[in-house]
Amino acid sequence: MSEHVYPSVHDLTLEEKASLTSGADAWHLQGIEAKGIPGYMITDGPHGLRKGIPAGDGQTDLDASVPATCFPPAAGLASSWNPDLIREVGEAMGEECVQEKVAVILGPGVNIKRNPLGGRCFEYWSEDPYLAGHEAVGIVEGVQSKGIGTSLKHFAANNQETDRLRISARISQRALREIYLPAFEHIVKTAQPWTVMCAYNRINGVHCAQNRWLLTDVLRNEWGFKGIVMSDWGADHNRVASLNAGLNLEMPPSGTDSQIVEAAQDGRISSAQLDNMAQGMIDLVDKTRAAMNVNDYQYDVDAHHETARRAAVESIVLLKNDDAILPVSKAAHVAVIGEFARTPRYQGGGSSHITPTRTTSFLDALTARGVNATFAPGFTLDLAPADPALESDAVDAAKSAEVAILFLGLPDAAESEGFDRTDIDLPAKQLELLDRVAAVNDHVVVVLSNGSVVAVSPWASRAQGILESWLLGQAGGAALADVIFGDENPSGKLAQTIPLDIHDDPSTLNWPGEEGHVDYGEGVFVGYRYYDTFDKAVAYPFGYGLSYTTFSIGDVAVEKSGANSAVVTATVTNTGSMAGAQTVQVYVAPSACDVARPRHELKGFVKVQLEAGESKRVTIELDERAFAYWSEQFNDWHVEAGTYTIEVGSSSRDIAASVPVALDGDGKSMPLNEWSTFAQWSSDPVGSQVVAMLEEAGERGEMPKLPDNPSMRMFLEPAPINSITVVSTDGLSITEFMLREYARLIKQQ
Amino acid sequence: MSEHVYPSVHDLTLEEKASLTSGADAWHLQGIEAKGIPGYMITDGPHGLRKGIPAGDGQTDLDASVPATCFPPAAGLASSWNPDLIREVGEAMGEECVQEKVAVILGPGVNIKRNPLGGRCFEYWSEDPYLAGHEAVGIVEGVQSKGIGTSLKHFAANNQETDRLRISARISQRALREIYLPAFEHIVKTAQPWTVMCAYNRINGVHCAQNRWLLTDVLRNEWGFKGIVMSDWGADHNRVASLNAGLNLEMPPSGTDSQIVEAAQDGRISSAQLDNMAQGMIDLVDKTRAAMNVNDYQYDVDAHHETARRAAVESIVLLKNDDAILPVSKAAHVAVIGEFARTPRYQGGGSSHITPTRTTSFLDALTARGVNATFAPGFTLDLAPADPALESDAVDAAKSAEVAILFLGLPDAAESEGFDRTDIDLPAKQLELLDRVAAVNDHVVVVLSNGSVVAVSPWASRAQGILESWLLGQAGGAALADVIFGDENPSGKLAQTIPLDIHDDPSTLNWPGEEGHVDYGEGVFVGYRYYDTFDKAVAYPFGYGLSYTTFSIGDVAVEKSGANSAVVTATVTNTGSMAGAQTVQVYVAPSACDVARPRHELKGFVKVQLEAGESKRVTIELDERAFAYWSEQFNDWHVEAGTYTIEVGSSSRDIAASVPVALDGDGKSMPLNEWSTFAQWSSDPVGSQVVAMLEEAGERGEMPKLPDNPSMRMFLEPAPINSITVVSTDGLSITEFMLREYARLIKQQ
Repeated sequence: MSEHVYPSVHDLTLEEKASLTSGADAWHLQGIEAKGIPGYMITDGPHGLRKGIPAGDGQTDLDASVPATCFPPAAGLASSWNPDLIREVGEAMGEECVQEKVAVILGPGVNIKRNPLGGRCFEYWSEDPYLAGHEAVGIVEGVQSKGIGTSLKHFAANNQETDRLRISARISQRALREIYLPAFEHIVKTAQPWTVMCAYNRINGVHCAQNRWLLTDVLRNEWGFKGIVMSDWGADHNRVASLNAGLNLEMPPSGTDSQIVEAAQDGRISSAQLDNMAQGMIDLVDKTRAAMNVNDYQYDVDAHHETARRAAVESIVLLKNDDAILPVSKAAHVAVIGEFARTPRYQGGGSSHITPTRTTSFLDALTARGVNATFAPGFTLDLAPADPALESDAVDAAKSAEVAILFLGLPDAAESEGFDRTDIDLPAKQLELLDRVAAVNDHVVVVLSNGSVVAVSPWASRAQGILESWLLGQAGGAALADVIFGDENPSGKLAQTIPLDIHDDPSTLNWPGEEGHVDYGEGVFVGYRYYDTFDKAVAYPFGYGLSYTTFSIGDVAVEKSGANSAVVTATVTNTGSMAGAQTVQVYVAPSACDVARPRHELKGFVKVQLEAGESKRVTIELDERAFAYWSEQFNDWHVEAGTYTIEVGSSSRDIAASVPVALDGDGKSMPLNEWSTFAQWSSDPVGSQVVAMLEEAGERGEMPKLPDNPSMRMFLEPAPINSITVVSTDGLSITEFMLREYARLIKQQ
Repeated sequence: MSEHVYPSVHDLTLEEKASLTSGADAWHLQGIEAKGIPGYMITDGPHGLRKGIPAGDGQTDLDASVPATCFPPAAGLASSWNPDLIREVGEAMGEECVQEKVAVILGPGVNIKRNPLGGRCFEYWSEDPYLAGHEAVGIVEGVQSKGIGTSLKHFAANNQETDRLRISARISQRALREIYLPAFEHIVKTAQPWTVMCAYNRINGVHCAQNRWLLTDVLRNEWGFKGIVMSDWGADHNRVASLNAGLNLEMPPSGTDSQIVEAAQDGRISSAQLDNMAQGMIDLVDKTRAAMNVNDYQYDVDAHHETARRAAVESIVLLKNDDAILPVSKAAHVAVIGEFARTPRYQGGGSSHITPTRTTSFLDALTARGVNATFAPGFTLDLAPADPALESDAVDAAKSAEVAILFLGLPDAAESEGFDRTDIDLPAKQLELLDRVAAVNDHVVVVLSNGSVVAVSPWASRAQGILESWLLGQAGGAALADVIFGDENPSGKLAQTIPLDIHDDPSTLNWPGEEGHVDYGEGVFVGYRYYDTFDKAVAYPFGYGLSYTTFSIGDVAVEKSGANSAVVTATVTNTGSMAGAQTVQVYVAPSACDVARPRHELKGFVKVQLEAGESKRVTIELDERAFAYWSEQFNDWHVEAGTYTIEVGSSSRDIAASVPVALDGDGKSMPLNEWSTFAQWSSDPVGSQVVAMLEEAGERGEMPKLPDNPSMRMFLEPAPINSITVVSTDGLSITEFMLREYARLIKQQ
């Protein structure tokens, strides 16, 4: 870190300290002119810079912002499984911030896609916290390498838009620790984002902004976070409580700095806590100072567009490719159908909405490469009913073409920050068009544009090829042309299960909640953790994605690297005839254990670029955490001793090899007490001695005899010893006897 | 109630009062000889009397008890949908208690079958609380009509055996009120059981025995319970806490009455509370006095056996009857296969296990009616692998028969109190035998014996007929012969969905819990409330059951009987050629509402006996509660205004008619406050005036103007007004302005 040039918090007046803990306006920190502390700008992300242009009346219009490169939103980028590429995107965004003098870009958002209906799923990464954390960390590293801050958001458990400012996410500690927090935890521990943005919602009754357990105990004390926490815009409802909980910065400001002064004066906020929170703000300004002092910087618009194109290529997932319909020959007579080919949907709505530096539609890309294709829009992107004339034109175009490339997807109005979807169906008029096109042309390729999952299985049989292109950012059209015509080999893998039916989702019963709360009733069984554990059919599984070439994964070896860690090695080979990339995925499957665990969980992955025929050896390390579950009993992570199966494959349901590894376990155990069952006592080394003593005392007539008929033993074994109410003749209960003798034996050890 | 002949609690010493709050031994109340209060016996039920025979060593052996009529356990009886019949069973049990001088029989058990794996499902009634309550109430009414007490159990949320003495059932208030409590509530309110037995488990952290909310606030204060609460055997871990919570009686006694004396002396128990609890015990003894003073009473063993037979007949559910394979002609050459035909499984294991007065196997019944059949056991009832010789004999028998009646089921070891099942499959050797029998005979009838659901769909195609006979009690063999040969027409209806796959059950993700807790993550979506709401396929739906005749339901009319109540009438006709009974089921389906509600819920039913060709008009009343949900916001039942659909049919998925009815609603509403959203303010009669005033103030420049561009309005509408942090020039925030003006307008009203 650079040398501090700003005053310490101890050089500030109480009023100045208080002023640092709220913004100057909706998009600026509050500087202190008298002390030379600047009020830098912070703006939205997360897949590009949304530096707003204030309207004449001083109001914000989210759709008015300076041009910036629109990279693929997280739903797309997540499919890349390529942290290096994601880091490059982050670097580019950092450069744009330098030019625009934006000190902090608000992102990445790493909330879990608990349910595909979530309105903001397009901004989030995955249903899997390991994948989300290990991908999004690249944004943080990339941006911050340019001297610009990120804001890891929305901390935490902001998994829906419905009633997001009030809803209490009622979640077990285990689900929080295993599902909803680890992406944040990984990024905080490995990349130290300069800021974290707390979420709107409540967790188990307490607003995130006022949640000291979340912002201080876990984030700072457990994970070692060194940056500042800001509120999501409007998430702070009680500045004093929030500041005490660990919130450094209220955004936008409510003009209530004087309340903080009063609270500090009357002791409702300790001076140490106010100093900590304010010093964090000075430190943030200091970290960004170097970049903010760069003048006349101009980023390379073309280079960033190219980065966006490469990111888009890797975001595309090839779902289906019967008879190698893809890539399409450049010489083929192609019909391009669907308004999305001309008017791409490349980002989502809400605070992340960017004004791109340029956009390339698929039609633009065809023109650029001189491909001659017939285009028919087929449908409009509004909510109007099917247009028979547009459909007829499209069907006519399809009739005479060798291949019909049909661009289907969700229009802007179908998904956005601010509301959740109510179904995952494509618009009816688009499906109707698909039916009609497929009726006249057997060679249909469907290209999907959608921020979150859409149902594929109802119509998949009518397409020979399906490309799930999510939202691809401003260079998506070029990327799609590259993939469709084989200049690039698709390598995306699903970061999210595509279900057969939205009602299959395990959170369906508790979505989106009611009366101010939402119960996370599915616990840790989110996404593939549910589908795979309970053998539920899906349309396409987590981690799935095809290539124009083929791969094999072999020679899988697992070696213990410690009592509870292992190293996995495998050889991945491109067995086809085209260069391509395969993502080797490592899942850990526990055997029988004390809690209900998912059948397997992603704990490592590596994407490998291979020439045709080439092989590479890959190594993936599994640390103790890779095997642990969160124990509510220990209030800690716990690794049980036993055999774990290491599964190496190319999707959660395409496992090439399963290798067992025996771990020692972390040795944690609970001491026996009056609530331990008779069976637990009997199986414990010391407890079993006590049981023997009890039985002997029974033989001697000094204690009551335990029942020995099978029906009563069946009751006895699972009973805590304090429910065995038989009392001995001298008034000593069985429980008292056992606890006394246990204490004596333990003391002797 | 009879005149009191026992002293009041005020005539007792402190020690005597304390002594009344625990038993004398495991099966007797503690009398007070000096005061003439007897120590009556209380024994297990619930489907017959289990009056234990003490072993020589003073230990209890659950399998040793005096003979008593074994009626069908609740799993069977519940399929009768016949409260009158159930009341007759109760009357018979009451008579047996009179003879045996048992003052209280422990039952019925009305816990919800949350998951078919629950080890005690055979003792419980249904997955539906309305059905459970409206059937089991017959047991209470019948027993108590004989002057004998019942013990409604296990109160509450004891839905599994796993770790049942320690587990905390973590359940939302709404699921408790709508699913887990209503069967208790209905019976308490309509039949006043003389005792309630509290359950072993904890609810949201608090043991039921110590749960004052449960035992006092809800049971006594809300529902008006007048009887005593006893602990399940070993469920009381802290007598002082339990007594304060509202537990009258600890069973079995822990010999700690002196602790109660001390606690009363030092004020940890108030004298009023101890008096209340002890007086309840005196009142109980008084209620049973008349029956306990009857001497030399002898119940009619034959008549009770006949009652058991009739109950068994109505417990049988005809699941499948292709080509009218059933009833089997008495002249047909029949092969009877399966050890269950000779050795019936007619009850479950554990505390409910009865020594029957006699048993009739199916083979006995055949002999009695002179039917000539070939019998082959086919398999053994133990866990030994398939026996090829037994199988060959069975296949040979099937080969030469016109009809093969195959008795399959779960052996004793597969289900019992004390443990939960881990799957719902029939034993592999039985299914193998079915395959072999079906291979040589196209006319297979499967008769199932099982206490809780078994998977049917994997093999259903191999049987032309399927009878689900559950556990039928001691006269089950005769009942089955009556049904199979057409002397009785089956009329049972499923009280529990038969799923395709146990993993379809919505509680699967949280079953059976871990580390001392189980999350009821499915909330109110238990059983058909899940399957029907989310359109999930099942093997056989709730309420389903065929007959040898056919019925129609028509002329359905719904008339409002109040602002929020209605009367349903319908005509049910026997359209076939044999007398039979149809159960008309009424489901209420809410329309769009503020919370996620099941698609429909059972709110009424009536079983109608009809001669061939006969019609009857039935009437079913729906009170306000039939339309209500439990609102956590109001902490009360709530009926929203709007249209409800009344569905009348013969199963949850066979609805003959759907009739809308518009209700006024109960008028409950929450006042606006700072947490109400802008949209809520705008739609409220008074709130909308305030919004208009705010906008006018904005026009005048006295308050900030609200954003008017669409993107910002999208953020504004769902936001509570306290998150709109814009402050006016004179320091009055929008929130403060709105609350001030609202208060002013409300005051003016």
